[in-house]
Amino acid sequence: MIKKNNKKFVKKDFKKGVKPDFNKSSGIFTKKKIGEIGSVPEGKFELMGKVNRIIQTTGPTVFVVSDGTGSLQLKGFAGAGERSYPEIEEEDCVKAKVKLEEFNGEIEGDIVTITKLSDDEHNEFLKVMEQVEKDRARVIPPEFLVEGNVLNKLKNNFIEAATQIRLAVIQDRPIIVRHHNDTDGYSSGFALERAILPLIGKQHSSEKAGWEFFTRAPCAAPFYEIDDSIRDTALSLRNVAKFSNKMPLIIIADNGSSPEDLMAIKQAKIHGADFIIVDHHFFDKDVISENVLVHINPFLVGEDGSKFSAGMLCAELARFINPDVKHVEFIPALAGFADRIDLGDPVIMEKYLEVAKKEGYTKELLSEISLVIDYISAKVRFMEVREYIEVLFGEPRDKQKQLVELLAPHIHALDAKGLMMAKSNAKTEKIGKTNLQLLYFEEFFPGFGFYPKPGRITGMVHDNLQEEKGITSLVSVGVLGTSMTIRATDESNFSVHELIKFLDSEIPDAFVDGGGHKNAGSITFLPNKQKEIVKLTKDFIKGRS
Amino acid sequence: MIKKNNKKFVKKDFKKGVKPDFNKSSGIFTKKKIGEIGSVPEGKFELMGKVNRIIQTTGPTVFVVSDGTGSLQLKGFAGAGERSYPEIEEEDCVKAKVKLEEFNGEIEGDIVTITKLSDDEHNEFLKVMEQVEKDRARVIPPEFLVEGNVLNKLKNNFIEAATQIRLAVIQDRPIIVRHHNDTDGYSSGFALERAILPLIGKQHSSEKAGWEFFTRAPCAAPFYEIDDSIRDTALSLRNVAKFSNKMPLIIIADNGSSPEDLMAIKQAKIHGADFIIVDHHFFDKDVISENVLVHINPFLVGEDGSKFSAGMLCAELARFINPDVKHVEFIPALAGFADRIDLGDPVIMEKYLEVAKKEGYTKELLSEISLVIDYISAKVRFMEVREYIEVLFGEPRDKQKQLVELLAPHIHALDAKGLMMAKSNAKTEKIGKTNLQLLYFEEFFPGFGFYPKPGRITGMVHDNLQEEKGITSLVSVGVLGTSMTIRATDESNFSVHELIKFLDSEIPDAFVDGGGHKNAGSITFLPNKQKEIVKLTKDFIKGRS
Amino acid sequence: MIKKNNKKFVKKDFKKGVKPDFNKSSGIFTKKKIGEIGSVPEGKFELMGKVNRIIQTTGPTVFVVSDGTGSLQLKGFAGAGERSYPEIEEEDCVKAKVKLEEFNGEIEGDIVTITKLSDDEHNEFLKVMEQVEKDRARVIPPEFLVEGNVLNKLKNNFIEAATQIRLAVIQDRPIIVRHHNDTDGYSSGFALERAILPLIGKQHSSEKAGWEFFTRAPCAAPFYEIDDSIRDTALSLRNVAKFSNKMPLIIIADNGSSPEDLMAIKQAKIHGADFIIVDHHFFDKDVISENVLVHINPFLVGEDGSKFSAGMLCAELARFINPDVKHVEFIPALAGFADRIDLGDPVIMEKYLEVAKKEGYTKELLSEISLVIDYISAKVRFMEVREYIEVLFGEPRDKQKQLVELLAPHIHALDAKGLMMAKSNAKTEKIGKTNLQLLYFEEFFPGFGFYPKPGRITGMVHDNLQEEKGITSLVSVGVLGTSMTIRATDESNFSVHELIKFLDSEIPDAFVDGGGHKNAGSITFLPNKQKEIVKLTKDFIKGRS
Repeated sequence: MIKKNNKKFVKKDFKKGVKPDFNKSSGIFTKKKIGEIGSVPEGKFELMGKVNRIIQTTGPTVFVVSDGTGSLQLKGFAGAGERSYPEIEEEDCVKAKVKLEEFNGEIEGDIVTITKLSDDEHNEFLKVMEQVEKDRARVIPPEFLVEGNVLNKLKNNFIEAATQIRLAVIQDRPIIVRHHNDTDGYSSGFALERAILPLIGKQHSSEKAGWEFFTRAPCAAPFYEIDDSIRDTALSLRNVAKFSNKMPLIIIADNGSSPEDLMAIKQAKIHGADFIIVDHHFFDKDVISENVLVHINPFLVGEDGSKFSAGMLCAELARFINPDVKHVEFIPALAGFADRIDLGDPVIMEKYLEVAKKEGYTKELLSEISLVIDYISAKVRFMEVREYIEVLFGEPRDKQKQLVELLAPHIHALDAKGLMMAKSNAKTEKIGKTNLQLLYFEEFFPGFGFYPKPGRITGMVHDNLQEEKGITSLVSVGVLGTSMTIRATDESNFSVHELIKFLDSEIPDAFVDGGGHKNAGSITFLPNKQKEIVKLTKDFIKGRS
Repeated sequence: MIKKNNKKFVKKDFKKGVKPDFNKSSGIFTKKKIGEIGSVPEGKFELMGKVNRIIQTTGPTVFVVSDGTGSLQLKGFAGAGERSYPEIEEEDCVKAKVKLEEFNGEIEGDIVTITKLSDDEHNEFLKVMEQVEKDRARVIPPEFLVEGNVLNKLKNNFIEAATQIRLAVIQDRPIIVRHHNDTDGYSSGFALERAILPLIGKQHSSEKAGWEFFTRAPCAAPFYEIDDSIRDTALSLRNVAKFSNKMPLIIIADNGSSPEDLMAIKQAKIHGADFIIVDHHFFDKDVISENVLVHINPFLVGEDGSKFSAGMLCAELARFINPDVKHVEFIPALAGFADRIDLGDPVIMEKYLEVAKKEGYTKELLSEISLVIDYISAKVRFMEVREYIEVLFGEPRDKQKQLVELLAPHIHALDAKGLMMAKSNAKTEKIGKTNLQLLYFEEFFPGFGFYPKPGRITGMVHDNLQEEKGITSLVSVGVLGTSMTIRATDESNFSVHELIKFLDSEIPDAFVDGGGHKNAGSITFLPNKQKEIVKLTKDFIKGRS
Repeated sequence: MIKKNNKKFVKKDFKKGVKPDFNKSSGIFTKKKIGEIGSVPEGKFELMGKVNRIIQTTGPTVFVVSDGTGSLQLKGFAGAGERSYPEIEEEDCVKAKVKLEEFNGEIEGDIVTITKLSDDEHNEFLKVMEQVEKDRARVIPPEFLVEGNVLNKLKNNFIEAATQIRLAVIQDRPIIVRHHNDTDGYSSGFALERAILPLIGKQHSSEKAGWEFFTRAPCAAPFYEIDDSIRDTALSLRNVAKFSNKMPLIIIADNGSSPEDLMAIKQAKIHGADFIIVDHHFFDKDVISENVLVHINPFLVGEDGSKFSAGMLCAELARFINPDVKHVEFIPALAGFADRIDLGDPVIMEKYLEVAKKEGYTKELLSEISLVIDYISAKVRFMEVREYIEVLFGEPRDKQKQLVELLAPHIHALDAKGLMMAKSNAKTEKIGKTNLQLLYFEEFFPGFGFYPKPGRITGMVHDNLQEEKGITSLVSVGVLGTSMTIRATDESNFSVHELIKFLDSEIPDAFVDGGGHKNAGSITFLPNKQKEIVKLTKDFIKGRS
């Protein structure tokens, strides 16, 4: 938890220095940058800053100032609830002498004197500040956790993304992380959270800033939909109106690369939001890059994104954002299991497993954690539940272990039940060299809220048939009222993207839509076209086998 | 935004007067009404007031007092967090000498002395205060934006409604606006919001009061349902318990006139809420008027409400409530497009278009904005998202424009797709002179969350068939599992209300229910009666054609 | 409302004593336990305590200390927003001289001096404090409201449960009450709320503590599901992180005894929550007791839980928890009506009706209130709406009366409509000596949100057929897509639990699940097994009649 870390950070730092004597008025104010203060608060300082926000409390007036190296709350007291220094307004640049105080991990400055800068000083200060911000945001690229083509080719994108994220923190800009609602998505979101939250805590010298300036939440759909975008925009606009916040930097993880995300991104940009995308899903044409600050996706550099999970990308990115980030080393392997990278690129997976092992995470444990996260994500749906997610990701490790030991057997039993239900209702037929396994969910699925969900069940019967019957050329299709979910083996020579094109040309009035990876995805259609869609899918398989 | 406006108002007013010297104790306290203070806070005042609320902060004790001309927060400081003047309790009337302060658009008074009034003074003061409140609430009727019978006949209702709303503001009573969840409903709610929020800001001399004392939210159904009523009541009771708030005045807009709203209104009244209704929907019998403070509906004065939208009524009402209301002139035309008043009463529509044009809103732009609001309302569902709605209604204008330019083409494409889906599944037959177009949504509708929704799709195929085939006597019926949605042309001699009566008498065990306008509405029935209902609908059309 | 009560309590207590003179510094500090202070705050005291929480406000620093007899907020002021006594940290034990203050029903202490205890004093103090807490938590068992075997056999469980709940309050531990979402469940939850809230108010000398340290909310399902558990855990973990709260004591009422609740309980325990269960539902095997602090259920002592409602148990428990609890005497009879205890054990019901009558609640009124609560619970779903629920339970009585007078006739009309719908679609056949009444809801039920809900409708047609036709051996089954809801007469020799076993062995791939009482319950199955399930149910009835 950021709280604990932060506390330690401040306490420790305090012990390093000499305890300041706040009560004695020595008359000597040392000139300091705000960023230097956090670690050695020896009493009295003189500093300059831009006033970002003025908050009148029932006690003192609080001026939130920033000089590019950090933010600090300066308090002026002219009587309880009385506005002190009314001549100073938001956006002003000031020079102040302050005495420092600390409590509960926050450092604040008591104003002794505060004055506005002259116009010349003002302009000079802003120029310096901008340069300082750029310098601070600058990234020193670390070694990647493992070696690989994908990472090397994307290195510059990582640097640029990390720089932009660091700059947002430095400029007190709220950050929203929106991720796919599955284990890979949660791994992505959490790796970023773990890198960003401590930076925010440091920037504001405050434990609570993590709740004010950071949100992580799953998307409802496998896209960043217009609905998500409107919601993020609306809440941000409210925070601007109520709390003088800035419009956010939004990071979309394990989603965001496809044309389906475009409208949502453009919508939020109108209101002042900016975007960074970290995705590994396929897109036909890149319409996203020109609309966002940075776009990271293996397909952008000619690599196959289905062989590299978003959680891997985000864990590596986390280390660019925050060189001191802790406990993200096991996340790539965890995310890899969830997205079956072990099948797509066993070599990279093996490397990440090595890294995870050093942290005490075995293959078996990672697989179980991945399972539990999938289950919990289905339960919490769109709630953030930050502290609960922390436990799932090993903070603290002993509770993570207990949780996995309790829930994994439970989920295995649910999976076994789901598999049984599905198997007794699956129909398999041979089409050319390929086997097609059909599952009509309307016949047997118990309904909304049931775990495992149709996509997972389809994956399970798909794996199961290969294991039990040794079938290697297999397409499994779960059919629902207005959609189907698909898994295919390499040998089946299948392609979700090609099937979508085929269906769209053969039966345009089914209004087919969909996406995913080559061997795994889902397709929607109109309810009264279900039969024809299944028939055409068979034709499609026939044509490729 | 109220925030900006408010700030300007205070700043400007301050500049008019001489900056008070709060530190110097001159000994002279001018007698003032609270309402006079806002504009000339020259230092020290003596005032009387009733104590509505006492809030103990961690700093001073805050006494919220009102004298009928306004509310003011008076602060007494007896040590941090210590209760000052413990002899003064809520409901007491007091005389106080105060020094004034201002910050962030709020004005507060520092108590120098404060004493309770004697019993005689108390009673005298309350009598004066009541009269002052009445005087302040009094409305000076403005000219209507356009001339028309409907408005003239309803003028007294407008005056009465505006007076009651102004009185609620003056008495620190929270106001809840609940409106129909479509463009006309949003137009209605927003016009009222724009009139009321600045009054609340002024009354409390506070930017934040707008969030405390005002809520606007759409209803889920085309009625103010018991569910809405229980929710509003429960939240209000909580605010009473936690914050000593009063029970609210609830304004229902573009809903509320029909017997279906009655139970909900009565439920909330038990707990102390009061109601004002502004609607234009048809009702068989007026059971509402006797249960509410004011009821506004063209049908009450013998006019056809389907020829005058609720947004028109509310925009006119807004000008009665607040003579300084800004930017509502284009709302009637906007709402008119949404509710197709251009078909019902082209003359009034033309007049309102003239008014809107002066504000720079062309017919085309209004039609596009109306479209975007319809789309966004489907997306935000029951969230308030006040600041986002402000953008949609042109605050600021440039973002409204960008949003419309981005979203309108997107929505047109969605509409085109919805229309195509529907057209390829529509069945048309001739019954006597009338054409009946049937759409079975279960066959082709992609499901919950899809835009356009069934009601809109039915409207689109209805319009489309008229345009493409030149059919003028047409009834279009979208059939769902337990309901149908209907659009009819004047020439078809249809009536939703008559059909409901007919079905109810022919097949009582279908438990038919429904409502709307003569030529547009929806009807519910039991699932196993769908076939018979469609057959009987054909009989009904036959009988009238 | 706790607020009012609390206010009265403090005001009254103040009047008992002499108003303290806080301003005069007499130099004499009387040694006191915190718990003694509430009733006689005569100026200045010396006390010891453990620091549970330190809150830095924008004014003073607040130290929340406890000595086992109560909690008190001590304020130290070293300048606005400045941390006072930085040498004192959470978990320290301290000795303090304070001056007392009161406002709005809260009592706080102004620190004159405060020092840490020595190690020896510290250990000694904690030992005493633990003993004091135990002593304070000790329960003096009251007489039960009525005599009966069930209660006598469970007496020790009552004492143990009440002691644990009192201890949680004393230790500033939040309490969450989770109850079944029906009238019996609400009665159970509310009886506990009414007992616990005043204790929390007293413990913290604060009106607002009731919102901080207590939550009551219905469960979604007839179990305490893993979803509920994750939600409760996640919110509690957030409160721990943000507010230094403790993990909660969770009381499950009218749910919680069955194996279906086990996983959820274990999940929350991992994170530090503890449980008390008060239920009356049947379980095959008790797997709960060993996992909770206390388990109360008639079946644990060889009694039939279907003849004693959870509301009865909780109303009795409420009197153990808080000897001064008010207005719970009518709750057992109310809950009894809702769960038809009048049919199961008319004798106990008669006794509770006697008790209720003394409070002015007639049989008719109780039956109507029960009806209204059922209706409202369907409407508010999972919202807490504490203050609204208070009105339903007679605070104040006159509004309860008005609400019942308004809503009961409305609900009777809805019921009548629901009954009519169902009757015209019910099919009855004779199987051996037993009559089976089948209701296929898919044919006639208007859908989600409709009141009465399928379970209630099934109960109504079940009762109605007995009344109208004099049938005494009757099983009524409401059939939905993937579930059925069942009511049976004693004479039919039915058993929901036996039917579940039977179906599970006859058709395992229907994946049957379910629960309830012998004569009333519900069963789920896979959608494509509906026909076979109905056929097998007929076989089952045949085999037992």
